[in-house]
Amino acid sequence: MHAITLTTDFGNASPYVAAMKGVILSINPAAAIHDLTHAIPAQDIRHAAQFLAGGVPYFPPGTIHVCVVDPGVGSERAILLVEVAGQFLLAPDNGCVTDLLAVAGGNPVVRVIEEPRFWRPIISSTFHGRDVFAPVAAHLSLGVAPAEMGDITAHWVKLPTPEVRKGVNQFTGEVMFIDDFGNLITNIQADALSEKAGALMVGKQWRKRIAVVNAYAEAAPGDVVALSSSDGRLEIAVVQGSAAKVLSASVGTPVTVGFPR
Amino acid sequence: MHAITLTTDFGNASPYVAAMKGVILSINPAAAIHDLTHAIPAQDIRHAAQFLAGGVPYFPPGTIHVCVVDPGVGSERAILLVEVAGQFLLAPDNGCVTDLLAVAGGNPVVRVIEEPRFWRPIISSTFHGRDVFAPVAAHLSLGVAPAEMGDITAHWVKLPTPEVRKGVNQFTGEVMFIDDFGNLITNIQADALSEKAGALMVGKQWRKRIAVVNAYAEAAPGDVVALSSSDGRLEIAVVQGSAAKVLSASVGTPVTVGFPR
Amino acid sequence: MHAITLTTDFGNASPYVAAMKGVILSINPAAAIHDLTHAIPAQDIRHAAQFLAGGVPYFPPGTIHVCVVDPGVGSERAILLVEVAGQFLLAPDNGCVTDLLAVAGGNPVVRVIEEPRFWRPIISSTFHGRDVFAPVAAHLSLGVAPAEMGDITAHWVKLPTPEVRKGVNQFTGEVMFIDDFGNLITNIQADALSEKAGALMVGKQWRKRIAVVNAYAEAAPGDVVALSSSDGRLEIAVVQGSAAKVLSASVGTPVTVGFPR
Repeated sequence: MHAITLTTDFGNASPYVAAMKGVILSINPAAAIHDLTHAIPAQDIRHAAQFLAGGVPYFPPGTIHVCVVDPGVGSERAILLVEVAGQFLLAPDNGCVTDLLAVAGGNPVVRVIEEPRFWRPIISSTFHGRDVFAPVAAHLSLGVAPAEMGDITAHWVKLPTPEVRKGVNQFTGEVMFIDDFGNLITNIQADALSEKAGALMVGKQWRKRIAVVNAYAEAAPGDVVALSSSDGRLEIAVVQGSAAKVLSASVGTPVTVGFPR
Repeated sequence: MHAITLTTDFGNASPYVAAMKGVILSINPAAAIHDLTHAIPAQDIRHAAQFLAGGVPYFPPGTIHVCVVDPGVGSERAILLVEVAGQFLLAPDNGCVTDLLAVAGGNPVVRVIEEPRFWRPIISSTFHGRDVFAPVAAHLSLGVAPAEMGDITAHWVKLPTPEVRKGVNQFTGEVMFIDDFGNLITNIQADALSEKAGALMVGKQWRKRIAVVNAYAEAAPGDVVALSSSDGRLEIAVVQGSAAKVLSASVGTPVTVGFPR
Repeated sequence: MHAITLTTDFGNASPYVAAMKGVILSINPAAAIHDLTHAIPAQDIRHAAQFLAGGVPYFPPGTIHVCVVDPGVGSERAILLVEVAGQFLLAPDNGCVTDLLAVAGGNPVVRVIEEPRFWRPIISSTFHGRDVFAPVAAHLSLGVAPAEMGDITAHWVKLPTPEVRKGVNQFTGEVMFIDDFGNLITNIQADALSEKAGALMVGKQWRKRIAVVNAYAEAAPGDVVALSSSDGRLEIAVVQGSAAKVLSASVGTPVTVGFPR
């Protein structure tokens, strides 16, 4: 028996998550359901993509992940069943699988869900999480083969991946994700950092000599520091504070690291 | 072995939910506990009633639901054990079961919890969730018969159910629930909508020709649309936005749908 | 098989909780994981300490609790494995175990985690929750003996415990915890209250004749009342409102109860 995880933007006070859990347990009463989050900002596909890349890889093979961040629900967008590194992910075809596939490596097998016999009998046009995702996940957890769910496709939506630009004495990336502490996780690999690094620029305003640390506790509360995030990227943090607030940064804010000549 | 679900207004940062889970696991270490929500607005019985009606019906027979939204804790209000469609719900007798019983159909069996041998030995006057609800749910999950918990009653608190008023060329209902996206769920059945519908009025200010869609993605971000909610009621949404904010609506705000003569 | 509980300040929208759950399930796919909270205010060790004291004691022996509120991650601070009343708690050595040990009684056995063979192979300096706490908890849940994890210590960080000062006709304590309702939980034992109590002072401004009640519902909405909290301490509440807001109180705000001469 395999675990089912849930990742949505439904929030915490409406009954949509409950409905999905009920549907899953109605099909597989022994399902082990794990909440990952229901606080993805509404319709924020980029946030969902970073979230999945940050969480899914730690689960064991056989885990069935369900991601419902789905502004296109009821339109012609497909629902994907992605198999990567032995795990399964059900997600709308809106790009939210992009970052996971970039970090998970290997060759993913991507299917389009198209077998209504594993869905609820009536499909609403506003809540496929309940009517398609949940029952498909439950059937997978009972051992139905992914191949029963739909055919393999070679085409799915990919989000644009912002690139790091390397200059003579600097490189520039951007903020990819902001965690609940307000730490800024960038698309710059942390091993590019070194004691040689000189200046750090966040956005157009904030510029300072960089303080590279190994751990938050190496600097004083309120200090702005650069360090390696827990997944090896350049992270900018305010010790016991919020870098997002202090530096007025948001996802997409450019970040430049400069080296002295 | 049956699942136990938890629905409370305790919020996420205080240890009351933890205490309930601990009590349940102390009695039934193998209990499968599922959080539905702990973010019901404090003491908001109407929100709880809508939440339960929206989530509970999807669970399989035998599920044991616990709802603790209980401003009357420690007073003479009863605690109910409701059996409906093969499921069980423990809830304070304050009306929060009203909407569930309206949608679940059938004849509910309602009991008043009155057998202290299934409670914790000392009952506080501020936390029956821990002292009564949790241990009763745990004992039910171990197979104790509902009839052991208390006698059947024919009397329990019902919330007033706002009616839809039908006029010559219009009908008027009200906002019953606002989800975390800010979508307005009304008490008007969506099948009353049709292409004939003309004007939509929300509150006293906002009035516009109605745009009826099947799915959010049929309109542009920012558009106000009317559609069928996932449980078949008239829903008013702002595509990728919050109808509650844009239309300054709250629970109880009147909603009128007009038809051209 | 024993339950694993998670208590963190990670918030709900970042993937760190997911990563911890994934690591646990990768080691013990049958682990029963229970969220206690992920909404401890960031780096708030005092809140974590009160939370653990309020929730942990209700769980059965054998439960494995994991608390990651860890501003010192990556520094020289130790990670503790505390055994108390037959339960286990993994927590950073920053004082967050103080209040639990005060209420749990008995003689705790405290170990310092120091056996990397139970950790992930590479240890980041920002996320020991994923790299140390989660795998150690998973191994414990599989039956590895606590003694395998590290040696016993007699030294760990204790938070200062504010004392109640008794005067001739009054005693003064302080607000220790504020729950999500805004109720103020103090360090004054509720049995010190009695009908003899006269005045209640919260902070420097708010002073009033005390209204001692047994349950919230004994007073009218909006009334300020004093009662016994669910763990037997003096609690100050605003009926169906927030005492923290109405009285402008925060953790540490002094509270004085006066008796007429």
